[in-house]
Amino acid sequence: MIISMKKGAPQEEINKLVRSFEEMGLSVTTIYGEDYNVFGLVGDTTRVDETQIAVNPYVDTVTRVSAPYKKVNRLFHPEDSVIDCGGVRIGGQEKIAMIAGPCSVEGLEPIVETAKAVKAAGATMLRGGAYKPRTSPYAFQGLGTEGILDLVEAKKATGLPIVSELMAIEHLDEFVEYVDLIQVGARNMQNFDLLKALGKTNKPVLLKRGLANTMEEWLMSAEYIMAGGNENVILCERGIRTFEKYTRNTLDLSVIPIVKEKTHLPIVIDPSHATGDWRLVESMSLAAVAAGADGLIIEVHPCPERAWSDGAQSLTPEHYASLVKKARRIAAVIDREL
Amino acid sequence: MIISMKKGAPQEEINKLVRSFEEMGLSVTTIYGEDYNVFGLVGDTTRVDETQIAVNPYVDTVTRVSAPYKKVNRLFHPEDSVIDCGGVRIGGQEKIAMIAGPCSVEGLEPIVETAKAVKAAGATMLRGGAYKPRTSPYAFQGLGTEGILDLVEAKKATGLPIVSELMAIEHLDEFVEYVDLIQVGARNMQNFDLLKALGKTNKPVLLKRGLANTMEEWLMSAEYIMAGGNENVILCERGIRTFEKYTRNTLDLSVIPIVKEKTHLPIVIDPSHATGDWRLVESMSLAAVAAGADGLIIEVHPCPERAWSDGAQSLTPEHYASLVKKARRIAAVIDREL
Amino acid sequence: MIISMKKGAPQEEINKLVRSFEEMGLSVTTIYGEDYNVFGLVGDTTRVDETQIAVNPYVDTVTRVSAPYKKVNRLFHPEDSVIDCGGVRIGGQEKIAMIAGPCSVEGLEPIVETAKAVKAAGATMLRGGAYKPRTSPYAFQGLGTEGILDLVEAKKATGLPIVSELMAIEHLDEFVEYVDLIQVGARNMQNFDLLKALGKTNKPVLLKRGLANTMEEWLMSAEYIMAGGNENVILCERGIRTFEKYTRNTLDLSVIPIVKEKTHLPIVIDPSHATGDWRLVESMSLAAVAAGADGLIIEVHPCPERAWSDGAQSLTPEHYASLVKKARRIAAVIDREL
Amino acid sequence: MIISMKKGAPQEEINKLVRSFEEMGLSVTTIYGEDYNVFGLVGDTTRVDETQIAVNPYVDTVTRVSAPYKKVNRLFHPEDSVIDCGGVRIGGQEKIAMIAGPCSVEGLEPIVETAKAVKAAGATMLRGGAYKPRTSPYAFQGLGTEGILDLVEAKKATGLPIVSELMAIEHLDEFVEYVDLIQVGARNMQNFDLLKALGKTNKPVLLKRGLANTMEEWLMSAEYIMAGGNENVILCERGIRTFEKYTRNTLDLSVIPIVKEKTHLPIVIDPSHATGDWRLVESMSLAAVAAGADGLIIEVHPCPERAWSDGAQSLTPEHYASLVKKARRIAAVIDREL
Repeated sequence: MIISMKKGAPQEEINKLVRSFEEMGLSVTTIYGEDYNVFGLVGDTTRVDETQIAVNPYVDTVTRVSAPYKKVNRLFHPEDSVIDCGGVRIGGQEKIAMIAGPCSVEGLEPIVETAKAVKAAGATMLRGGAYKPRTSPYAFQGLGTEGILDLVEAKKATGLPIVSELMAIEHLDEFVEYVDLIQVGARNMQNFDLLKALGKTNKPVLLKRGLANTMEEWLMSAEYIMAGGNENVILCERGIRTFEKYTRNTLDLSVIPIVKEKTHLPIVIDPSHATGDWRLVESMSLAAVAAGADGLIIEVHPCPERAWSDGAQSLTPEHYASLVKKARRIAAVIDREL
Repeated sequence: MIISMKKGAPQEEINKLVRSFEEMGLSVTTIYGEDYNVFGLVGDTTRVDETQIAVNPYVDTVTRVSAPYKKVNRLFHPEDSVIDCGGVRIGGQEKIAMIAGPCSVEGLEPIVETAKAVKAAGATMLRGGAYKPRTSPYAFQGLGTEGILDLVEAKKATGLPIVSELMAIEHLDEFVEYVDLIQVGARNMQNFDLLKALGKTNKPVLLKRGLANTMEEWLMSAEYIMAGGNENVILCERGIRTFEKYTRNTLDLSVIPIVKEKTHLPIVIDPSHATGDWRLVESMSLAAVAAGADGLIIEVHPCPERAWSDGAQSLTPEHYASLVKKARRIAAVIDREL
Repeated sequence: MIISMKKGAPQEEINKLVRSFEEMGLSVTTIYGEDYNVFGLVGDTTRVDETQIAVNPYVDTVTRVSAPYKKVNRLFHPEDSVIDCGGVRIGGQEKIAMIAGPCSVEGLEPIVETAKAVKAAGATMLRGGAYKPRTSPYAFQGLGTEGILDLVEAKKATGLPIVSELMAIEHLDEFVEYVDLIQVGARNMQNFDLLKALGKTNKPVLLKRGLANTMEEWLMSAEYIMAGGNENVILCERGIRTFEKYTRNTLDLSVIPIVKEKTHLPIVIDPSHATGDWRLVESMSLAAVAAGADGLIIEVHPCPERAWSDGAQSLTPEHYASLVKKARRIAAVIDREL
Repeated sequence: MIISMKKGAPQEEINKLVRSFEEMGLSVTTIYGEDYNVFGLVGDTTRVDETQIAVNPYVDTVTRVSAPYKKVNRLFHPEDSVIDCGGVRIGGQEKIAMIAGPCSVEGLEPIVETAKAVKAAGATMLRGGAYKPRTSPYAFQGLGTEGILDLVEAKKATGLPIVSELMAIEHLDEFVEYVDLIQVGARNMQNFDLLKALGKTNKPVLLKRGLANTMEEWLMSAEYIMAGGNENVILCERGIRTFEKYTRNTLDLSVIPIVKEKTHLPIVIDPSHATGDWRLVESMSLAAVAAGADGLIIEVHPCPERAWSDGAQSLTPEHYASLVKKARRIAAVIDREL
């Protein structure tokens, strides 16, 4: 960590600051500049709060050199993590996970039918929302427990492991029992109590990036889960919020090489929520595979026009099957399979 | 709601769509254009999901004319709402609420001392965090229940009603019992389960705007609480996330006149979190009062350099007292008191 | 265009507004709602200024249904435009253009050497900056005319048509004479005088999207050039500005399918400026090809560490050759060549 | 400047880098950390290109400690700059400049009439656009030279110095002759050729912040003008682009205290363009004065509904007069006059 102090800081103040660092077990080197003096702190700075140092009226800037995360850091865990989700392994050189299904579970028969359709089209996992985060209190909020149990039946019928979004700690037991990969939605990426609760389980977690969260904050949220003891974390990019109006969000595919450089965790891409428009899903999916994604989570509905939610971004099973075929050929170019 | 359809849509498709609107109890008017046909829907469109309509491959755009919120809408509630928070009334032409205190409660003695200091400086309510949302799992997470009880003691000692942030439903009972104004933090603005739980109480709620949420989404989150039956909602702007790096967030003061035009709810400004820098707090506070804010929530700590969190944005009691004096004179110019 | 008026607008005001639309040659349909009345305007609304209509104190919202651009609109020009740039044809089903070269021209010998190297590696056009837009007045500003003449020599030596950025009208003649594809940089996307001047030539223009410009504004800037009479416009995405700090900009690949849907113009991707980091260039390039880009413009330098500018985002010729090979195989999957 | 290098960098590489810094006349201190080594560079780093250093594959991060600007930096020019604009002095403890007038000059009679009206209402300078940057090529583009000459007549009639926007170097002579304060619009903030040309004059320049430019980039653009020899620069904030849709832009008033801390230049606020809505202009103007602005530039039109452009954000002279009265009383609270 690097701290620059304005010239003219009284020597007593400087000494006090240096002492406070040394008390944290850090060693301190000083560089005397023309307009600034600079301290370099060496040691484990993970627990140092840089905003707190900036309080000092003589401090000008505080810069972190080493990353604030440990558990997710590839520096300390060079090999890729591979996460087993009900038999489907995600990450490393494993097959690219193809997660598909409707936005919302709409009942037993529809989800079983959709599960069969996406499996036939090439999916390896089934997604479906039972608890839905909706902007409006007047919109459909999901079938709840009934939806989870419907997913379990769909899994029995097809063998596809299931992914669903957890919105509140009170439903955690249900998810641990029934769901193979627990999704934390973008809006809950910094619901720290939820992250801590997940950290105490050993269930795989699909951690979506928040709408306006930096990659570093996202990795820190993964760190919350891992610091609690659960190392089964998969990251998921689903678009960030920008000023652009032609897409719902802006899909940031550069996260793929960056996540692979900075961490050892798998990265999955969600082109459906990112774009909000089924017409953009195929091209963004192929792009994600070309860029090295470890999985794709895509909304598929047998009849998007009748979907209870998010129909605008849902593919039909036929479209999805066609996408899978092309994605498979793209994957081959970069020596991956799907 | 206005729907534009591409020319060339088969008449049968158009009829089907019109029928579906009529089944929702809406009446439909059609405008035949050169390149587009347009439908206007009249009636209660609050429950219509515009993204769902956009699924139709012949639909080009869907535009909402009337607001998606009802309970917060000034159109249906022309007079200002005034919320009673443990005796301090916020909103309308009431005195501008001056909420002050440390970021985190740091123990009984410190919080009582600070409460006395901010009261002496002109504060009318006391803030203090007992549960802290921290980006890093390694940072101080708050004193929890102990912190809440310390706040209660500080209230006894000074008479100041207390404000504190609720992060999880499991602590709701404690907050309903002890806290006068329950804060929902920016990161939980769309934690819909938490909003629903608050909607079932009748405690005043201070709803912070999310880091990257539009005003409309913010009002929809207020609608969640009010739709549940709790009409005691106060909105709080605390800065939004932009590309700018010299401030932590960008304080959006234009929310003040907009909230007053579109809703009947009070609006409070938090310049401390918005800027992240105590040197900017006074000017942004005076600006907020000049723009018509109904309250200010400001971090004050007897010794910012020793604060356990957010010291960089905390004022000393002396600074705060000076700010209060100027704010009082600004308020007088726009016929408000403080 | 759809205009909603608040209930309670005096009939006289409504009549006045309707008359003003009719005077513009538009026909008007009215929808009477519960809380709003809505007007639909039919006819050529390209010249109607929606912000001007919003002045009327009784007007609540103004929404454009048809696009504000004509010349770039695929609706009126269904077939793909193919632009001939010194013999290299870009757009439609033509080969994907591979534009490569250094950020800045650094002298005759270096640019000729680089041109040969990128040609050998698979490039079909040569890029190089002679006039450089630099944030700091103290940074290298480019060789100017000398740089342009050096590019001409490199073209003679290799046959590669050349691309370079024009920053001021006073250099336009030089560019028209020597350059095959004139680049308008992100910072000049809304330098309307420059766009108008380019509209009077018939030289191909590579129009980069501004750092924080919506796609619609970008298309309007293309419209400026085309409205002047020059139909040879190629769009170029180079990343937009967001809150993210791990990349210089956020590459928005969703522009590819959207540009193809809304316009008939070719779209080229610049992964070098978007990411600012050569380590991200290959994966983003492959993603762009998979998503359907008509060309890639990539910074290549024989020795990035010695580059006079932007070395951090430059590939070596060896890296570039390897990228080209993979991109060729990706292109084949979507039935394109390169 | 602080450079961190990954552990494992060969000593030879480190030596080479250190030598290259020393050749630039900088002295180098090294801090040996656990996972990184850090170099501190002391000396004039204004001319060092940090992105260039980052090219080195062993370099992890490069951080600038001292600001990249010199001429605008308060560190080297502690007293406030006061700029004389045709007799009106802006900056320091001078009266707050009240610049008002229509978006576009619409002819001789209208501008003279408006000039008289805004003067009567309290304005001290007259604004009016003769060259208009419009998103659409089909929108009104301004009266050009005729508009400038009309402004000159309005100045004769009222004594108010005039402000107008320069869009192209070819009109610079006209502006130097006739205009008292030359505005550089947001879209031209990084039109570096224009900035350089202005740097060679000694006319006061009102430099608007770009739509999505950081404060640092804005100050660097001011540095361009000053480095050329023209020290008469006034900064103007006019809103930045964010995701919010209820306002055209987000007015960032925190620039006021920051500009005053980091530079010695005056800061003017434009609430009209920032909000795009006249209903928000008064509250934002009062807020700007309370925050310490050195001037306000506000659009005023005798009949906003008939304005040729930007009527939606224009005040009537009556509204403006009322705003001026309140602003005067706000100014008094912070010991300023207006």
